[in-house]
Amino acid sequence: MSFSVAVAGASGYAGGEILRILAGHPEITISTVTAHSNAGQPLTAVQPHLRSLSGLTLVETVPENLAGHDVVFVALPHGKSGELTSHLGDDTIVIDCGADHRLTSEADWERFYGGEFFGAWEYGMPELLLADGGMQRQNLVGARRIAVPGCNVTAVTLGLAPGIRTGLIRADDLVAVLAVGTSGAGKSLKPHLLASEIHGSAAPYAVGGTHRHIPEIQQNLAVAGGRDIRVSFTPVLVPMSRGILATSTAVLEPGVTAAQVRAAWEEAYAGEPFVQLLPEGSFPKTADVLGANTALVGLAVDEAAGRLVVISAIDNLVKGTAGAAVQSMNIALGLPESMGLVQDGVAP
Amino acid sequence: MSFSVAVAGASGYAGGEILRILAGHPEITISTVTAHSNAGQPLTAVQPHLRSLSGLTLVETVPENLAGHDVVFVALPHGKSGELTSHLGDDTIVIDCGADHRLTSEADWERFYGGEFFGAWEYGMPELLLADGGMQRQNLVGARRIAVPGCNVTAVTLGLAPGIRTGLIRADDLVAVLAVGTSGAGKSLKPHLLASEIHGSAAPYAVGGTHRHIPEIQQNLAVAGGRDIRVSFTPVLVPMSRGILATSTAVLEPGVTAAQVRAAWEEAYAGEPFVQLLPEGSFPKTADVLGANTALVGLAVDEAAGRLVVISAIDNLVKGTAGAAVQSMNIALGLPESMGLVQDGVAP
Amino acid sequence: MSFSVAVAGASGYAGGEILRILAGHPEITISTVTAHSNAGQPLTAVQPHLRSLSGLTLVETVPENLAGHDVVFVALPHGKSGELTSHLGDDTIVIDCGADHRLTSEADWERFYGGEFFGAWEYGMPELLLADGGMQRQNLVGARRIAVPGCNVTAVTLGLAPGIRTGLIRADDLVAVLAVGTSGAGKSLKPHLLASEIHGSAAPYAVGGTHRHIPEIQQNLAVAGGRDIRVSFTPVLVPMSRGILATSTAVLEPGVTAAQVRAAWEEAYAGEPFVQLLPEGSFPKTADVLGANTALVGLAVDEAAGRLVVISAIDNLVKGTAGAAVQSMNIALGLPESMGLVQDGVAP
Amino acid sequence: MSFSVAVAGASGYAGGEILRILAGHPEITISTVTAHSNAGQPLTAVQPHLRSLSGLTLVETVPENLAGHDVVFVALPHGKSGELTSHLGDDTIVIDCGADHRLTSEADWERFYGGEFFGAWEYGMPELLLADGGMQRQNLVGARRIAVPGCNVTAVTLGLAPGIRTGLIRADDLVAVLAVGTSGAGKSLKPHLLASEIHGSAAPYAVGGTHRHIPEIQQNLAVAGGRDIRVSFTPVLVPMSRGILATSTAVLEPGVTAAQVRAAWEEAYAGEPFVQLLPEGSFPKTADVLGANTALVGLAVDEAAGRLVVISAIDNLVKGTAGAAVQSMNIALGLPESMGLVQDGVAP
Repeated sequence: MSFSVAVAGASGYAGGEILRILAGHPEITISTVTAHSNAGQPLTAVQPHLRSLSGLTLVETVPENLAGHDVVFVALPHGKSGELTSHLGDDTIVIDCGADHRLTSEADWERFYGGEFFGAWEYGMPELLLADGGMQRQNLVGARRIAVPGCNVTAVTLGLAPGIRTGLIRADDLVAVLAVGTSGAGKSLKPHLLASEIHGSAAPYAVGGTHRHIPEIQQNLAVAGGRDIRVSFTPVLVPMSRGILATSTAVLEPGVTAAQVRAAWEEAYAGEPFVQLLPEGSFPKTADVLGANTALVGLAVDEAAGRLVVISAIDNLVKGTAGAAVQSMNIALGLPESMGLVQDGVAP
Repeated sequence: MSFSVAVAGASGYAGGEILRILAGHPEITISTVTAHSNAGQPLTAVQPHLRSLSGLTLVETVPENLAGHDVVFVALPHGKSGELTSHLGDDTIVIDCGADHRLTSEADWERFYGGEFFGAWEYGMPELLLADGGMQRQNLVGARRIAVPGCNVTAVTLGLAPGIRTGLIRADDLVAVLAVGTSGAGKSLKPHLLASEIHGSAAPYAVGGTHRHIPEIQQNLAVAGGRDIRVSFTPVLVPMSRGILATSTAVLEPGVTAAQVRAAWEEAYAGEPFVQLLPEGSFPKTADVLGANTALVGLAVDEAAGRLVVISAIDNLVKGTAGAAVQSMNIALGLPESMGLVQDGVAP
Repeated sequence: MSFSVAVAGASGYAGGEILRILAGHPEITISTVTAHSNAGQPLTAVQPHLRSLSGLTLVETVPENLAGHDVVFVALPHGKSGELTSHLGDDTIVIDCGADHRLTSEADWERFYGGEFFGAWEYGMPELLLADGGMQRQNLVGARRIAVPGCNVTAVTLGLAPGIRTGLIRADDLVAVLAVGTSGAGKSLKPHLLASEIHGSAAPYAVGGTHRHIPEIQQNLAVAGGRDIRVSFTPVLVPMSRGILATSTAVLEPGVTAAQVRAAWEEAYAGEPFVQLLPEGSFPKTADVLGANTALVGLAVDEAAGRLVVISAIDNLVKGTAGAAVQSMNIALGLPESMGLVQDGVAP
Repeated sequence: MSFSVAVAGASGYAGGEILRILAGHPEITISTVTAHSNAGQPLTAVQPHLRSLSGLTLVETVPENLAGHDVVFVALPHGKSGELTSHLGDDTIVIDCGADHRLTSEADWERFYGGEFFGAWEYGMPELLLADGGMQRQNLVGARRIAVPGCNVTAVTLGLAPGIRTGLIRADDLVAVLAVGTSGAGKSLKPHLLASEIHGSAAPYAVGGTHRHIPEIQQNLAVAGGRDIRVSFTPVLVPMSRGILATSTAVLEPGVTAAQVRAAWEEAYAGEPFVQLLPEGSFPKTADVLGANTALVGLAVDEAAGRLVVISAIDNLVKGTAGAAVQSMNIALGLPESMGLVQDGVAP
């Protein structure tokens, strides 16, 4: 048995990564790949690394080309999915990698994105801790509309949620600084994304609480049971294509011990194939998860500073986007959750 | 008139950078360059980029080779300077780029470094704000023993000190995360510093309050007037040779406005050639200061998170090491402070 | 059914890559992983990206630990395999990723490597063209001892062999210049491999005909039918971990047309999953094949210069080492040749 | 005394680098900086690394803004200089960093560039060997119109010219492959120049004899005395911002010895501050010359292949563009040729 899939936005980085993963998925047939300005070209003219898909040709991103598939992945800039996917019926699972259906608060949508608000879909982060002790994967079973989380959001949420749910850390003074690769910004032709500008340089952006991923982090931590959540969030572009290394710190509640902290994270992610806690004294680097659907988490308590430091590493295009999308699809379709996904990074 | 200079540790990155800067200094004659395992070789065999110094040969790092110069720069691993420089008289200015003479607290020395404690020297950060309203440069005039600050310390101190001195930010909940280049670790042959490990990867180290630069930051902020200083400090190695991009955040004292913040930083660094505040909405990247003695600082207030975010960028080998050393030398010798130093980065 | 495998030298880059590939191979059980100084440690302490193999522990690289497996992969420095593998019986397939068994000429071995010569094994490049019209894969069926080609050798051989076999290019004036990533040099702790030295720099090595891969290229092109083969070969280290981009040029024999050239390469590699010719005007980049077992080849005839230019791209650790090893294993075991191997690169 | 200078195209990489160098030139006053879309902005808004020039504002690139200066540097795309500079009188020295005035052959211009041909200017490569034994610098004394060479051209020409002039190498079978940084392509917003595409990848371009620098190389080698010059030229983009590492190989004439070769290069560049031959067995890397006006050359004879291999390294923006421009200006103005230029690279 094989499910028919379409990928809208197959010429971009997220779309390409969805295809790369699906190419190795045993129960999927990639039927349709769409693009805008590249429509009409062979897929490999735009994505030359997808050698196994050399028979595919890009067609226009219009509803007619997406209809009739079991699953449609949407990998378009935000604001493009709402209208496009409204034409697809409930017999099709729609998985949106953009931001259009992530936020539950229309006010947040208007403040950080703007434009028409299409409402939140089921949130595609299976390992998101729920305040009641469950995990978000239970809500994805049978889901027909899924919103894939933002990449930075994934790194920070997975890093901090166990402490929020257990109440071991304070939610109102979180500080996250992320070293991020350039592919998160997509293929957009902006001067600051030119290789000459990025090589040998670290550059912050969206400094001072303006990044669009902030409300989504707060939303997730609220789902995990947090109240009065305040997070200082600063991304720093560094010279690599892929990867997010999030350094998230939080004030420990009085009396909390390092052992309690470790136990909380261990319990939260015990047995999870794609969220793994590293041993005491070990911390991840992004190369460990390159190309993999794995989030690695390391913990340290800094008693002098009174803060917990959580390091989390993901590949923004995999666990941060396309891997999360396929993992969610597997759950929605009733397939084994890990099907077609790898744990091992491509290193060095 | 020309001052005679020796550089001990000329085969390393810091030593090489001191030489590169001094090669363009109009009042300096580089007389002696020393090394350990490379002694006997031409300097350019080890530092092939120093073409203008091709006549120099490395000699052994022993006191006899350092005696008799007007200025001796020491660029050795910590623990090597104390004994070596004890043989040099007060007619020689000694400028140590290592850690041996930075800390005033012997307890901090023992906890973070260990080994014999040789005591603090005059601190070679001319723009360090003093609690009484002065600047550290006044203490460097005529100094004969100077300890050059740590590179990460420089980035964080220059970023936060104006807020500490003015009392606009709280000192007890500082969080600094730094994207740092690899040259700060020197030429040491460690597996995690191999190019194959660093390419395409961001990797934290010394997580959880163990980095040796933490007590030095606290010492500096105390000099600037801070009390009960607590700083969570996490460095992240990123794929570049040079540069530090520090994201330092602090809780604003109640009622403090963004305008007050900007005014404080403007006043602190007004007219400084080598510490420059960027305009509202502008933030530095490390490429802006590559090869330059400039520290660039950008500010943003995140009202939702209740935190000030300070971004500071330096070249760890210049403003973070060799440039600070030469700037301090200029002051100590009574030369124009900027002599031989450049403000402009090598970009792109 | 599952074959039992041991990997000797599992702590290095080649060994790690063999494990990464085998982890996704449906007919393989990884039973033993060996190392030298890291013996006794969990595999993931040394190869933290191999999350799916977190149950494995490194044991000593001694014959007793390798005996009794269906397949043993040897990923050790040259000179280490000959003695070690002499203890393994013919019931075990031994696949050596080092150089010990590649060269058929003892004189070449002595000149370029030295030390005891253990003789050539079956050559693990399935797509190597044979002068008689066949391909090397036919010789790998049922082989018990296989020597995996050198990575640079693979890029140049696959690029040039069709022209040599057909006689369209002259064999006596070949020029190959390769941009190579750092992982080809392994994890050896050498100063020139430090990240600080490699970032932002291109550096040649083994200039002037001294590289050990030269006799192996000549041997392969002789197998393909060439005579009086002379190749100028220069590798250039560039700032990336993986990848070889070979620019190989050859003088066209008089009267040869661009169409003839293209036809020859098309015919040579028609239907090959892992050696693919790009369309006219297209040329590969190494990112296209990162993590993949694919060699991509592009062709251009420069009539003014009288030369054919062949661009070939591989991932040195996959098609250049571990992928070739697994592909050869598949053939030797009678499994589908592509099993466990991917065509698609991890890009961007 | 100070000469007044204007830089047309000050918002680009070449223009920025001219300014960076001139900022340290003791006899120059930078009076005017022009741009197109960025006119009206402070220079540092576009070139944030040029801290010492923070008082300058960009004005429109029109003849009126360029008139009245002692020297005008033109750093515009090719095709833009001819008309613009025709309005400037002979009292102004015009130095064009573009291609408009490099080629002496109108046929080559039409084939490789196209558009109106404005004729060749004096060629701004002081160390270009002339067939009669002189050097091009003699032609630059008092020149009023100077065409700065192409960056790749500089690397290859300086590498090969000594062999051509002396007749030690054959001119009709030259092969040059260059590892080049991205800044040579300028700030143009093209997908293949995005950081995500460049990181971790080596990519050839202009394969097969189509690069515009080919006729200029041939022109130079003809000036040096070569006849029937044929050069296979392939540039490979590698992940660095600056630098060209050219591997140029040539067939040695019968009977030529390695000693003769070394003597010829030594004689050619004896005493040159900015073109330096490395000792036997040493080869340059691009980091050695980053930010410097130095070309480093290494030589090896490969007797088995019958070829000389010449490695030359430059910073494409300095010796390959802006440094050559300033060096030529110094000669034209009668200033010391090295004024304001540095030999030492910024490494690591």
